[in-house]
Amino acid sequence: MQFPLLTPENHTEFERRVERVRIAMERDKAEALLIGSTVNIFYLAGGVCRGYFYIPVAGKPLFFIIPPAQPTSASEISIRKPEQIPALLLEHGYNMPKRIGLEFDDLYYSEIERLKKLFPESDILDASRVMRSARMIKTVFEIAKMKEDGMRQSAVYSRIGHVYHEGMSDIEFQIEIERLLRQEGCLGYLRVAGSKMEINMGSLLVGPNADEPSPYDFSMGGAGMDPSLPVGASGVIMKPGMSVMVDMNGGFNGYQTDMTRCWMVGEVNELAAKAHECSCAILRDLEVYSRPGVEIGEMYRRAERMAQEWGLKEYFMGHRHHAAFIGHGVGIELNEGPVVMERNKSLLEENMTIALEPKFVIPGAGAVGCENTYAVRAEGLENLTPYKENLQQL
Amino acid sequence: MQFPLLTPENHTEFERRVERVRIAMERDKAEALLIGSTVNIFYLAGGVCRGYFYIPVAGKPLFFIIPPAQPTSASEISIRKPEQIPALLLEHGYNMPKRIGLEFDDLYYSEIERLKKLFPESDILDASRVMRSARMIKTVFEIAKMKEDGMRQSAVYSRIGHVYHEGMSDIEFQIEIERLLRQEGCLGYLRVAGSKMEINMGSLLVGPNADEPSPYDFSMGGAGMDPSLPVGASGVIMKPGMSVMVDMNGGFNGYQTDMTRCWMVGEVNELAAKAHECSCAILRDLEVYSRPGVEIGEMYRRAERMAQEWGLKEYFMGHRHHAAFIGHGVGIELNEGPVVMERNKSLLEENMTIALEPKFVIPGAGAVGCENTYAVRAEGLENLTPYKENLQQL
Repeated sequence: MQFPLLTPENHTEFERRVERVRIAMERDKAEALLIGSTVNIFYLAGGVCRGYFYIPVAGKPLFFIIPPAQPTSASEISIRKPEQIPALLLEHGYNMPKRIGLEFDDLYYSEIERLKKLFPESDILDASRVMRSARMIKTVFEIAKMKEDGMRQSAVYSRIGHVYHEGMSDIEFQIEIERLLRQEGCLGYLRVAGSKMEINMGSLLVGPNADEPSPYDFSMGGAGMDPSLPVGASGVIMKPGMSVMVDMNGGFNGYQTDMTRCWMVGEVNELAAKAHECSCAILRDLEVYSRPGVEIGEMYRRAERMAQEWGLKEYFMGHRHHAAFIGHGVGIELNEGPVVMERNKSLLEENMTIALEPKFVIPGAGAVGCENTYAVRAEGLENLTPYKENLQQL
Repeated sequence: MQFPLLTPENHTEFERRVERVRIAMERDKAEALLIGSTVNIFYLAGGVCRGYFYIPVAGKPLFFIIPPAQPTSASEISIRKPEQIPALLLEHGYNMPKRIGLEFDDLYYSEIERLKKLFPESDILDASRVMRSARMIKTVFEIAKMKEDGMRQSAVYSRIGHVYHEGMSDIEFQIEIERLLRQEGCLGYLRVAGSKMEINMGSLLVGPNADEPSPYDFSMGGAGMDPSLPVGASGVIMKPGMSVMVDMNGGFNGYQTDMTRCWMVGEVNELAAKAHECSCAILRDLEVYSRPGVEIGEMYRRAERMAQEWGLKEYFMGHRHHAAFIGHGVGIELNEGPVVMERNKSLLEENMTIALEPKFVIPGAGAVGCENTYAVRAEGLENLTPYKENLQQL
């Protein structure tokens, strides 16, 4: 296998990412990392492969790869199992690290316990934290990938009106949108961090179903079609007065954008129309306000204050059940750092990519509001999902 | 939330499952389990919820549930975080267990480390192993769910020919089959065990793409559409002489069946036609041979011997790259126990549900063979995916 990032012509991009990882390693005093999760291998290799990346804080990283993939350069070494790694490190002139990072939030307990045995003399630290911090700020290449996602997702959203017909149920409508996405090249699979997050190709919420709570930690709920997957569309027949919130999969190339737009059957009530306007106004405000150096929690508070000023606080981020965030990082995974919530005291940094989704759930109508994925620039937010935001009639 | 299995009318089913878990607990000398993974909570509650099941080896199980779900009976207790569990156990008259099981293969390292702190005096054992063993043998209710899956999956497979048109690519064809599945009620999301398994709605392999290796541990490979998800359809234009292997999602109700059928564009070469016949012959043989008490490894060896006798060994379970198993348990997850591979010395048991997939990859044609999901009965295998097995022409 040729790894897109490991090829000589892409070497600068690989080094750029390793450099980002090393900045985070130094902060956590890691002498080396051993990376084995799918998402982090994809980040480093540019392709999914079984194996382990060994990243020393200085010196050449090694990629221990497991067949069927085969080495294509001197820094790739074929192994059958991780137990071969310590001897191979010594053989290649590396010292055993005193402090090594393993991915506590990305690998199951049994795998970490197995990997810990390779470094019996070393202190073990959390590499998930290190990688999350590194991945939070994107390279030019990564943002270009996400721009591509946003363009394609926008193209699909512009066709959504064409597949609706009167009397459809939410799930029937969703199936047609899934097909549009797949035809545009959406890979279908959504990478979400956390062992307890599950979703198919995104969520479509129609009318009162938007107010049904879900056990998953998404911004909105929905009862789902079955107790085994209680999120999203529930089989509601789409009727006049209902809002239709489309928050579907924007993953076309290993990265993804997160984007929500709303439609309505006939006309929604005045309160819902006003709340949708308020959501757009919050986005306009945050697009200008959110610059490098801004405290992330203040973005949340600003949005909440606007909802309050518009008299819409009780509907903000849900009605029966409220989400505690209005946005989140996005990239390889749908839910990366930072989380835009009240108590987040960290500062916004240039080239973070974040989805902002100030939404409302309005009795008698359903969910309204927009979501865009943005890149943080010196002068404010750049929208990666540029598509009209008005409540469109189906 | 009302949990389907926890309701009074379903109480017998719940007790039946807890009884199965306790048999496995006794084997591993577990005094209690604390279960927090989505799949195992679904097994015990019949619905997905955030929280933790506490199962003592004797006495009443407790379900600590996290909002938005609310308790609906005396054995359900609302908590905000797992740290509340020890005090609640004591308050409800439970002793702290000397030996407690946590799910080593289903929860990330960080979560297990957090849960271990709740039981500082206890020995910790692997509850994933216990639950896997319990879930391997299905109840009558579970097999009924899987029969429903098999009927619906078969119904969709009977419509596959209608959505084909000449000149399609594999991915275009797959998208239409995904839509048929979703319209029939397929939930879309596929639960697969293991942190490094990823797939969208199953796999469609056309012609030479079937011989492309994949980093995932599925029976067949395929290059995929992007290095970020290297499995399955790769954009191949479907041409005369190519085989078309359909191995798609059979999950309609929290359970799933695994089923493969093959089509061909025009006619495939003689070797491929013969190999397809051989696959069906292996299934016929194993349907009669596989009874409770049979060594599982012998099922593998029997299949391999038949492939050898038919002169097809080099194409068996792949050509450039060979899978080491011809089948696997299936249920809530696609890949449950037992694995039907050469070195599995365990014995088949009544009411196991296993998918058998003796497949071949034939140069010049592609992948051929069938897969059915079976329930193990006293008199042999009962096919839960009854649909004609011949190579159909598109």
